[in-house]
Amino acid sequence: MNLFILRHASAGLRRKNPLLDLKRPLDKDGKRHCLQLAHVLNALKIQFDLIVSSPLKRSLQTASLVGTETGYESQILLSNGLAPEATLQDFQKLLNECRGHENVLVVGHNPNLTNFIGSMLVPASDPLPAAVRLRKGTIARLSFNRSPAMLQWMLDPRTVRALYATSTKSSRRKTSRK
Amino acid sequence: MNLFILRHASAGLRRKNPLLDLKRPLDKDGKRHCLQLAHVLNALKIQFDLIVSSPLKRSLQTASLVGTETGYESQILLSNGLAPEATLQDFQKLLNECRGHENVLVVGHNPNLTNFIGSMLVPASDPLPAAVRLRKGTIARLSFNRSPAMLQWMLDPRTVRALYATSTKSSRRKTSRK
Repeated sequence: MNLFILRHASAGLRRKNPLLDLKRPLDKDGKRHCLQLAHVLNALKIQFDLIVSSPLKRSLQTASLVGTETGYESQILLSNGLAPEATLQDFQKLLNECRGHENVLVVGHNPNLTNFIGSMLVPASDPLPAAVRLRKGTIARLSFNRSPAMLQWMLDPRTVRALYATSTKSSRRKTSRK
Repeated sequence: MNLFILRHASAGLRRKNPLLDLKRPLDKDGKRHCLQLAHVLNALKIQFDLIVSSPLKRSLQTASLVGTETGYESQILLSNGLAPEATLQDFQKLLNECRGHENVLVVGHNPNLTNFIGSMLVPASDPLPAAVRLRKGTIARLSFNRSPAMLQWMLDPRTVRALYATSTKSSRRKTSRK
């Protein structure tokens, strides 16, 4: 199974009221990032056959925008295994339920998502997870066929933005030469 | 310090004679990959202020092509800390000598390069390194200011090729619309 782990995109500042914070939406930067990320995923010819999101709005919105723009037409599943309070055990239980799918995208939150990735990259006997930096909107591709999983690539939002800008800039440059 | 760890690009099949194998050059795919990778690094506005390579030809050639195409004008240092037989201690000694530089590119070989990255991402007390897959031509960016280092992004050659193709394809597409 190819597992794509994505931290939700930019969604402004945390709300003091926890109930309101659950419904905090993506901001303008966050929405733009989702579209740019989808552009890059399309360039990589990646299509998901399952998308699972945390139930929180900022995560579901990220999953939905990226899913729509990469041609995902099924329903996005919601799972508490990706919620901010989920434990590594919750997350692993979710992944076991995803077995049988080939390309799975999961969308969640920090700090636990960083911990989930880091823990998957080391043997279960290692006391501490691997150190990865997961900015908002970062996506990592893991091969998840045996334990530990293996990191194949990881794109942070600055990289996605720069790659997106190049692809549009170089086309503009050529056009203006005419 | 930002540390960019790059495995040398494609260089055909291993030679049986070890002395001849030291001089095995990049093949056509390998050279092309170096140029595509440089294109992507330029899009990311990354410039190196120090490049260190293993003494073997396929590694030095990778370092040289990527360096030239990203505007590196200083000399490429050769270090046995990146040679195929180097240990983690040799590698760490080299990195300590690189302190004081901001953006350092090191180019080396598998299987030890995979082990070096994996070991840098976990605390020294962890018995086993993190699991990353380092195809030929894969590059990883690590923040190397404290231990463990932190992985920021990682691009495998398929990702580089796809991103390069998109940036050139989308420009062609726009031009043909005129």
